[in-house]
Amino acid sequence: MRIDFKTAAGLLKENDNILILTHENPDGDTLGGAFALCRALQMLGKKARVECFDKIPPMFAFIPGGVEHEEFEEKFIVAVDVATPELLGDEEYIKRFDGRIDLCIDHHSSNALFAKYTLLEAESVASAASETVLLAIRELGVKIDEFMARCIYIGLSTDTGCFRYTNTTSRTLRMAADMMDVPINAGQINKAMFETKTKTYAALEKLALSTMEMYFGGRCAVIVITREMFEESGSDESECHPITAAPRQIEGVLAGATIKEAQDGSYKISVRTNAPVSASNICSRLGGGGHPRASGCEMKCALPEAQAKLLESIKTELNSINL
Amino acid sequence: MRIDFKTAAGLLKENDNILILTHENPDGDTLGGAFALCRALQMLGKKARVECFDKIPPMFAFIPGGVEHEEFEEKFIVAVDVATPELLGDEEYIKRFDGRIDLCIDHHSSNALFAKYTLLEAESVASAASETVLLAIRELGVKIDEFMARCIYIGLSTDTGCFRYTNTTSRTLRMAADMMDVPINAGQINKAMFETKTKTYAALEKLALSTMEMYFGGRCAVIVITREMFEESGSDESECHPITAAPRQIEGVLAGATIKEAQDGSYKISVRTNAPVSASNICSRLGGGGHPRASGCEMKCALPEAQAKLLESIKTELNSINL
Repeated sequence: MRIDFKTAAGLLKENDNILILTHENPDGDTLGGAFALCRALQMLGKKARVECFDKIPPMFAFIPGGVEHEEFEEKFIVAVDVATPELLGDEEYIKRFDGRIDLCIDHHSSNALFAKYTLLEAESVASAASETVLLAIRELGVKIDEFMARCIYIGLSTDTGCFRYTNTTSRTLRMAADMMDVPINAGQINKAMFETKTKTYAALEKLALSTMEMYFGGRCAVIVITREMFEESGSDESECHPITAAPRQIEGVLAGATIKEAQDGSYKISVRTNAPVSASNICSRLGGGGHPRASGCEMKCALPEAQAKLLESIKTELNSINL
Repeated sequence: MRIDFKTAAGLLKENDNILILTHENPDGDTLGGAFALCRALQMLGKKARVECFDKIPPMFAFIPGGVEHEEFEEKFIVAVDVATPELLGDEEYIKRFDGRIDLCIDHHSSNALFAKYTLLEAESVASAASETVLLAIRELGVKIDEFMARCIYIGLSTDTGCFRYTNTTSRTLRMAADMMDVPINAGQINKAMFETKTKTYAALEKLALSTMEMYFGGRCAVIVITREMFEESGSDESECHPITAAPRQIEGVLAGATIKEAQDGSYKISVRTNAPVSASNICSRLGGGGHPRASGCEMKCALPEAQAKLLESIKTELNSINL
């Protein structure tokens, strides 16, 4: 059931022992939103903690230290930035929380409404789930402290490419301005998030970019990242996110894709498009989904087959539009 | 003489036939600020035009079409984002305006106060001269239209690396939000300014990054760009600028260098450092120079010799600092 901010705040206020879940392969938005909410609930005197199926990427490693670590048996479960239960983690993990999510705070129009209650703003309204979390915290009447401000700023900035992507709205910028006024050192955050590459990431980027191939008259670009590249570079999936932006940045490219080999030999595919091409359509045909400009899917088959299927879906999408 | 916004608006209101000057090698801020002001003055019924010593770069080429082109003998001269008269253009051009600038609107603390009247905000207050121009236009009582909003947004975003650099303030973000609400398509502007790589640049980047080597325990990273790579990618020196930032972005790198083979077979070297390493010292020892964090030099010898000399100078510099 979709609920409004007032109802969501009411639910959070009347419950305790609150477990907050992020999505797998956690990014700045799911972590920033989850930890800001955790801190807000702790400030209301509640027991709350965040749980994340995957390891937290090094660049966000400082975040968990900003809240009290509390052990308790969860009585109320909140998911932040999680569009479908499948995004929580592996099969066993998903099963563990099956039917048990009480509240989902999200900004994916594609949200499956799998939680008992869903506080949902569309992508066109909320660039990041952290925008929706901020409004929920304000509704709770908790004053934003420096930690929450940093978390929310990280959520806003990482989901918008530091306010560059088309999902950025004037509301996003004003919320970021409010966070800066708390105050926080946004310049330092930006340097860590957007201006610094780990050695392992730089090594992976070099290997990954060297695989970039163009298709369909330069309207499509595809990068492949194999297990071998992860091993050679010392990097892992948690660092891959920025690479996925590279194919779409090339002049004339309407659909960019990154194919990552997972540890079990399957392939995780990230698709980024320029308007009017739908990344969501491209991935839906392959059993995945997401946002109009950024979507993903998974394929359990050999690489050549995965590539062929992906290119076929991209071709269908490119052919469906009149430019 | 430094003046406040009210006095500056008064001066602009009581004068007509206003010529607005930008600095040479014009960027988004000097152009955005100058053209927004020009439009505001035209909306007040005044004759106004912008003059720029250099050709306007292709990415900003659409801006001049947004104002009426008016010919008139200038009676009042305004300079925007110009810290010293030397930045206006060549000697002859500087001479033409010697002692004739009536009003300078700027955000460089180093402003030489060369104009009769100077409306100046420090860098810590105004990330871009366009911030100061926006406040001046508001003081004039002119309603910001779409063209002015696009100009101001371009000024703000280009001078802050799209709100990433440390000069970004909450005022910058709120001003950008106001411009978005006019409304303008900020996403489209960002895409053109920050998200688009030409195919030739993308091809060159891929080749160049694949040459990156680390030295001195990861404190130094070096990229080599050969003539062969320029030919294979179809790119040229004019597109190299962003690549030179890549080595320094890697975690732990204090000195990053890019070695470019020139058409005559000599090597042009760009050095970028992180504090406290001096790029200027590294290049001075090789017959070049520049700024503390960004310098350059040229070497007429074979590539292995150029590399060895460069690494030697970097080693000397790294050894000279205590970290």
